[in-house]
Amino acid sequence: MNVSDIGEQGLLARLYPFCSRELVGDDAAVLAIEPGHQLVVTTDVLVDGVHFSMGHASPGVHTTSPVDVGWRSTAANLSDLAAMGATPLAITIGLSLPGKMPVAQVEELYQGIAECLRPFNVVIAGGDVCQSPTTSVAITALGQIRPNRVLRRSAARPGDAIVVTGIHGASRAGLELLLHPEAGAELSAAERKPLIQVHQRPRPRLDVVAVLEQVGAFEGDRLPAAMDSSDGLADAVLQISRNSAVGAQLDYRQIPMPSCFERWLPPEQAIDWALYGGEDFELVLCLPMAIAHKLVAQLGGETAIVGTIVRSPGVILTDSQNEYSTQALSLSEGFQHFSQGQ
Amino acid sequence: MNVSDIGEQGLLARLYPFCSRELVGDDAAVLAIEPGHQLVVTTDVLVDGVHFSMGHASPGVHTTSPVDVGWRSTAANLSDLAAMGATPLAITIGLSLPGKMPVAQVEELYQGIAECLRPFNVVIAGGDVCQSPTTSVAITALGQIRPNRVLRRSAARPGDAIVVTGIHGASRAGLELLLHPEAGAELSAAERKPLIQVHQRPRPRLDVVAVLEQVGAFEGDRLPAAMDSSDGLADAVLQISRNSAVGAQLDYRQIPMPSCFERWLPPEQAIDWALYGGEDFELVLCLPMAIAHKLVAQLGGETAIVGTIVRSPGVILTDSQNEYSTQALSLSEGFQHFSQGQ
Repeated sequence: MNVSDIGEQGLLARLYPFCSRELVGDDAAVLAIEPGHQLVVTTDVLVDGVHFSMGHASPGVHTTSPVDVGWRSTAANLSDLAAMGATPLAITIGLSLPGKMPVAQVEELYQGIAECLRPFNVVIAGGDVCQSPTTSVAITALGQIRPNRVLRRSAARPGDAIVVTGIHGASRAGLELLLHPEAGAELSAAERKPLIQVHQRPRPRLDVVAVLEQVGAFEGDRLPAAMDSSDGLADAVLQISRNSAVGAQLDYRQIPMPSCFERWLPPEQAIDWALYGGEDFELVLCLPMAIAHKLVAQLGGETAIVGTIVRSPGVILTDSQNEYSTQALSLSEGFQHFSQGQ
Repeated sequence: MNVSDIGEQGLLARLYPFCSRELVGDDAAVLAIEPGHQLVVTTDVLVDGVHFSMGHASPGVHTTSPVDVGWRSTAANLSDLAAMGATPLAITIGLSLPGKMPVAQVEELYQGIAECLRPFNVVIAGGDVCQSPTTSVAITALGQIRPNRVLRRSAARPGDAIVVTGIHGASRAGLELLLHPEAGAELSAAERKPLIQVHQRPRPRLDVVAVLEQVGAFEGDRLPAAMDSSDGLADAVLQISRNSAVGAQLDYRQIPMPSCFERWLPPEQAIDWALYGGEDFELVLCLPMAIAHKLVAQLGGETAIVGTIVRSPGVILTDSQNEYSTQALSLSEGFQHFSQGQ
């Protein structure tokens, strides 16, 4: 059964059960914001054949199931809220799809969205479904925040530690394994699985803001800077630096990467994926060194201090073991490769 | 110069000036909600070749310029807020477009959005731009409302007057004139222009809520019911009736239509466009008769009482001049034609 067989109204009737019954069914949804809080809003659009591959744009290539598309679209938006320090409230979904799409696939897409939302108690507050030759998912996520808890890209200061909340390069590696199943033959099934998992089901770091509170990150006269690493770790550090009018120094040896990279990839490839691979959906935070150490201890896992904020502009990647030459990272030069030193 | 010539970053740089500088440039936008207010949110997706025709989907057919596409996408969302009784705050824009689209067209689209927002002091709080074979515009509008002012579809009561805030059928007529320039040869330029105008630049009725306040519509023990007529007047009355578990009786003679319809169209065609044409973006309100009369007097223009809410389910269209037979309106039967009586 395809979408065109049941029409827009028939499809909406099947999608209603995924939505909050109190919120949908009128011209718009009405949501309570807690007193003393402000609204946080972000929108992301994902397009079949560009951000994912459900097979309509490129028949035969399916790296992402409908459940995964739903999950990832949602995770990308929740990650943006996490990067602001916000608590998510609800999402709306603007779905464009061809009439020939099986209804079961649309339900799977919504199932992926609902699964990603569930642990955070976030509801679907409505949206729109319409016909299009190209499948795309436009999600708007709504959150709330106290005005004195907003994490901005522009808040980094010289001397700050740069903290990443987890490993980088894993999502890019997972994509590689999906696109080229013959790749990574030297990896065990137990090594491959988490890489693919992080690509298909990234987890937004909504847990971080509570830990920031615990370690006293909001107690001083300033707030931490933050951004998510959805467009890559290099991009996040460059954006924070530019927006804060500072520079940054990163130590190649401190960037947490999947441990299997060492056996699997040449070091240039490993650092390239870690810096530019994107979609790891971790947070990059800049905050005073003493608090950063508490944060790393409290968050545990692969959280690490990967560098420091400096006064002079530019983002420099160094190697504390002096095996590789220092290089300046650049967005405009895009995915430049990490060149081996002399 | 096409979008692919300047890339996503280049395009975003050109679109920033349309956005609120305080709100964009971080992972998400932070917006203040007035104390005692709740958040109202709605999302609409418009697709080229389905909801408008910018010429990429159907080369050679341009019924809608990029400026008009922007305006209409925005008006549709603001109209949803108006139908809830909300005051708009901001919108986000999720834009999908092919790389071969001229940059000037994207700027015109944003110009149309900005022009529609300007009278209401509503800002663009960010969004997303991405590549797609199909142009689509997903807008999410955010508004605020006091909890005791929410206008719901489910609030109609038997005995209520049904008020429409303006003429119906005009947008459908404007579309006809755009699609078939040879149509309406009997109309003067002064008659054609406002029909085309209402199709290309519909005005969301955000003025109505203040007038409801003035005429005391919020003073009793209940709130008015409301919905916008974006999907047609018949659809709005049917939705309100169904959601309120009541019925409705409409008088064909009371439905305000463009005065030129009388000379131009057979009556069956006129009422068909008025009931099912859609996109007039007026409000349909149900409220006690005494308040309805005050509302009509205060709003003026083409505002009219077009019928009453009754206890028994179903929406009946009658003719107070007994020229046409009574008929039951139905959504599931879609655009059924108004059959002439015996």
